Amino acid sequence: MHKVIYDTDPGVDDAMALLFLHRHPGIDLLGVTTVFGNASVDTTTRNALFLKREWNIPCPVARGASITFDPSRQERPWPTIVHGHNGLGNIAVPETIDLPTDPRPAYQFIIDTVRANPGEVTLVAVGRMTNLALALKHDPEIASLVKGVVIMGGNFYVPGNVSPVAEANIHGDPEAADLIMTASWKVVVVGLDVTGATTMGRSYLADMAKAGGPSVQLLSDLSQSYIDFYSHLVEDGMMVHDSCACVYVVAPELFDTIEGSVRVVCGGIADGQTIIKPNGRHFPPGDWDSLPSQIVCTGIRSQQVVDLIRDVILDEGKH
Amino acid sequence: MHKVIYDTDPGVDDAMALLFLHRHPGIDLLGVTTVFGNASVDTTTRNALFLKREWNIPCPVARGASITFDPSRQERPWPTIVHGHNGLGNIAVPETIDLPTDPRPAYQFIIDTVRANPGEVTLVAVGRMTNLALALKHDPEIASLVKGVVIMGGNFYVPGNVSPVAEANIHGDPEAADLIMTASWKVVVVGLDVTGATTMGRSYLADMAKAGGPSVQLLSDLSQSYIDFYSHLVEDGMMVHDSCACVYVVAPELFDTIEGSVRVVCGGIADGQTIIKPNGRHFPPGDWDSLPSQIVCTGIRSQQVVDLIRDVILDEGKH
Repeated sequence: MHKVIYDTDPGVDDAMALLFLHRHPGIDLLGVTTVFGNASVDTTTRNALFLKREWNIPCPVARGASITFDPSRQERPWPTIVHGHNGLGNIAVPETIDLPTDPRPAYQFIIDTVRANPGEVTLVAVGRMTNLALALKHDPEIASLVKGVVIMGGNFYVPGNVSPVAEANIHGDPEAADLIMTASWKVVVVGLDVTGATTMGRSYLADMAKAGGPSVQLLSDLSQSYIDFYSHLVEDGMMVHDSCACVYVVAPELFDTIEGSVRVVCGGIADGQTIIKPNGRHFPPGDWDSLPSQIVCTGIRSQQVVDLIRDVILDEGKH
Repeated sequence: MHKVIYDTDPGVDDAMALLFLHRHPGIDLLGVTTVFGNASVDTTTRNALFLKREWNIPCPVARGASITFDPSRQERPWPTIVHGHNGLGNIAVPETIDLPTDPRPAYQFIIDTVRANPGEVTLVAVGRMTNLALALKHDPEIASLVKGVVIMGGNFYVPGNVSPVAEANIHGDPEAADLIMTASWKVVVVGLDVTGATTMGRSYLADMAKAGGPSVQLLSDLSQSYIDFYSHLVEDGMMVHDSCACVYVVAPELFDTIEGSVRVVCGGIADGQTIIKPNGRHFPPGDWDSLPSQIVCTGIRSQQVVDLIRDVILDEGKH
């Protein structure tokens, strides 16, 4: 079993990934930690509780960071054009959900859970990397105690989505991401190079909803405005960014990867860009020297990934 | 006829490009301007005069910038491992050449020549963009008086060669390059995306030398240590970076291009990176807005380009 903490800012594609993690028979979802990003942390936490209730997800939800790791960074408007004003595609969501959050802040929940399961926990982070950075800051030793880190974020040999060179999750907190990439743990970076090529069609999702009953109908409903948003890039469908990172945990063979040290640009016109120095490529002495080697996804079997997401979400055998 | 000013820092691949420009029947080489880069400007100017004498090139040589456009940038060591201690692959070159340079600094030569040939001059710049930036600074109106600018430099969807994201010509003077890219003239950027895929084999060059007599033998001789340097990237051959930019002037149909606004990162870990916002891609308001659209080469018919270089260099019909 893969023990997973899911760090997320639901978020439409976050919701699909949550249902995938919840229903995959090989994944033991230990907790959901929330972070600002696709909406405020108030909203993303409420949304996590809403999905927990609707989908009967037993694990705790711990509320996380509301601002960037470096608090001097200027706040940006929420991407309501992408995820809706309520972070879930403007479907009807109660203003509050009558479920408790974990009493600890997300970073402390991460630290405690990793320490309680040494060598066993995979952190799957699909929003700003703020909670992970705070966990590392408060307890650097967890770097050697996690099994691994899989993130959705960044872009290497394709353009960004919020600037010509930056992807939203990294651009939203570059200092946090740079800390994550350069820490002594094994990070797998699932970025736009692969998620941008992995789309689920509107009718494909509709067929899933027909087969999957109310829980999958909810997923389909909350995804509709997101699919509308993507009409400039995708032929009547959506990129399933966050689910790709979750699929990597259970099916890494569906990805092509390269290895090398990774840095994140902090400041200037390339703010939030992820940059890899592939192992074996040599340059004059510079900012990538003597850093841990991470894994960056550069290729993906998209259709197999999308089919796996469907099969797992439709298989309620586990729950 | 294409009236060309060749701004260069010879430099091994610069030498091949110079012979191509000199011998191409459709090119009228109005002048050579020198700049620091592959070696000091003393050395590159001496080398330009040496090649002018050896190859009987009639046009003037004007000495250019010795330091970066922003003089506060730190000097870097010369890339002697690439171009040799004398900038020409360590072949025997006299310490001084008994030929005069143009009395004007390179930027003034560029300004005067462009103004004397309004709408007709193509600037082909294959070193640091310092001379072009100085010309623009001293006479901004030349932007509307040149026919076009073709540069060798930068990289967009491939890694850099002096850092994971930066190419040497741009990295060597990022402020100058950013000014060039954002000025109101038409720049064609011939970067590593295409030059890195365009190599000439050692034996191919040797065959050229056999057919071309002493002038091409000199070119082959000065290229040998450069070919040795490239052994980690090229199978017994050399990338013909600068010649690619010259080929673009006469045979743009051998290139695939995209268009968009281009910026250069100045400072930080991505220092010297070139970034395009392709036209038609939309991002939140940012640093690429309201800038002139430039042309960036993304594909090349490499073998046809290399064969054209050979054919032109071996055709002494013009001279």
